[in-house]
Amino acid sequence: MKKIAISIGDLNGIGLEIALRAHDEIKSICRPIYCVNETVLQWGAALLGLNVPMDFITEECGEAYEIKPSVVCAKAGEASFDSFTTAVALAKTGNADAIVTLPINKEAWNLAGIVYKGHTDALEDMLGCEAIMMLGCKELFTILFTHHIPLKEVSDHIKTKILHRFLITTYESLRVGHIGVLGLNPHAGDGGVIGDEEIKIAKAINRANEEMGREIFFGPLVPDIAFTDKSRAKCRHFVCMYHDQGLIPLKALYFEESVNITLGLPIVRTSPDHGTAFDIAYKNKTPSTKSYTNAVKEAIRLSEKTPVLDF
Amino acid sequence: MKKIAISIGDLNGIGLEIALRAHDEIKSICRPIYCVNETVLQWGAALLGLNVPMDFITEECGEAYEIKPSVVCAKAGEASFDSFTTAVALAKTGNADAIVTLPINKEAWNLAGIVYKGHTDALEDMLGCEAIMMLGCKELFTILFTHHIPLKEVSDHIKTKILHRFLITTYESLRVGHIGVLGLNPHAGDGGVIGDEEIKIAKAINRANEEMGREIFFGPLVPDIAFTDKSRAKCRHFVCMYHDQGLIPLKALYFEESVNITLGLPIVRTSPDHGTAFDIAYKNKTPSTKSYTNAVKEAIRLSEKTPVLDF
Repeated sequence: MKKIAISIGDLNGIGLEIALRAHDEIKSICRPIYCVNETVLQWGAALLGLNVPMDFITEECGEAYEIKPSVVCAKAGEASFDSFTTAVALAKTGNADAIVTLPINKEAWNLAGIVYKGHTDALEDMLGCEAIMMLGCKELFTILFTHHIPLKEVSDHIKTKILHRFLITTYESLRVGHIGVLGLNPHAGDGGVIGDEEIKIAKAINRANEEMGREIFFGPLVPDIAFTDKSRAKCRHFVCMYHDQGLIPLKALYFEESVNITLGLPIVRTSPDHGTAFDIAYKNKTPSTKSYTNAVKEAIRLSEKTPVLDF
Repeated sequence: MKKIAISIGDLNGIGLEIALRAHDEIKSICRPIYCVNETVLQWGAALLGLNVPMDFITEECGEAYEIKPSVVCAKAGEASFDSFTTAVALAKTGNADAIVTLPINKEAWNLAGIVYKGHTDALEDMLGCEAIMMLGCKELFTILFTHHIPLKEVSDHIKTKILHRFLITTYESLRVGHIGVLGLNPHAGDGGVIGDEEIKIAKAINRANEEMGREIFFGPLVPDIAFTDKSRAKCRHFVCMYHDQGLIPLKALYFEESVNITLGLPIVRTSPDHGTAFDIAYKNKTPSTKSYTNAVKEAIRLSEKTPVLDF
């Protein structure tokens, strides 16, 4: 079974509860290694009224500190960063096959003096590469060419050379047979009548396919029909030009199931697609473990380099 | 029962077949008046191997001409325009309660020397008003603030005054209790960090609610979670800032059911959300009548001014 390093996330949030509650399911599919300080783990479990299972294998990290449910604080930020770097180190040294990161609080990282905004830019810097965000579940994956930028700036980012490189990296991380690439404009520009960014997108697709000697990528797809049942029956991976082009249909169709996958890294990293949920942490409001268990399953699959079920 | 004028669309396409095949269902819910030349109707029915039912009431219009299955031609363009203007005249004079327009071919209108690009701009000119496009089905309606413009130009169109007027017109046409209004940027701008058009959107919402003395509109909504099951359980009408923001989720969820509704007119007008489908016209490939029958149902409901089932 694959060894999966679990970065425990912000301990003032729901991460620990999710890890404890899902453990029975998780240990049946992989060998999880929980990166958490043993003292804090015991105390957190007591706070939750849960037992720490005997086979809850930990990788010791950080210092003991007092969990403060739902509070944004530097100590929790520091602990979640320690857990994260410990998980990354396990993967880098081959002691774990993949990492799954439970949610952190970005403000807590900031309070702790951590220079990174979140997991993704930390991974880019620590591993010296450019990360690609993919979100989805086995029915539909959306790969974001741009993400947290104003909508009006998206057009300026569409450049043939950069998109071409992005497509190649995406393919190298995924190794699937068919990847749809969306156009930017209504009706994919309607032959240039409603915008012309599709010319650059088409060029990037052609160059990527030429380079690989196979027709992996197809498009530019008309965005509003790319996610119909019929279209999704032919392909499950879609490169989207902007954040909401991918996340609107994904969350409309598969909100609870989705996970976050970072492509383009030398290690496999996935995470559940939710936050620390301070509003329900340590309040006897059992959080859903679905996105987390899906994240572990994706991490296993990607680390096995099993080809994604595709057409 | 309501009288619904049916504009028959381009007779070289699937409109006539849909009208004939759906007649039994349609006549059970309204009194349809088919705007079509009687001679062409008989000939078209013969071509399809269908009978014209005895109670298939027509409003005579245009001249007899030869149907040419799947061909774009001026004669068919002219005939579909005659059918359309006849239906509009019936509604304007109170001889019909609403019109439902079957699909035309825009190139055929152009060949026939018709100055309009399509139904919507013709209606705006003929009725002297600004039309609003709404697409959807009873589970979800998306109202498009902008439509066929390049994505990069959307931001420039977001102006408080124009959006405010748009919201008021939308409410006056719909009279529903809750209408969501989407933001433009990822995370609705995240407090101004990722774009600031949401400030103008929020102002337009506030002014519209103030003017009506009720909280009809709410937002700006975070786009990627506006269409989740949970969000759609609270509200079914969403004003979208751009074409694909509304049509991507609508078609991902309800592709076949959707209809097109024109708001802001002094008459009620709906249409099925598909084209002439020349590829299957007169080829024994029975087209789906679902979107058309839904369009008739919406036309009846809107002409009855029944409040939409809302929360």
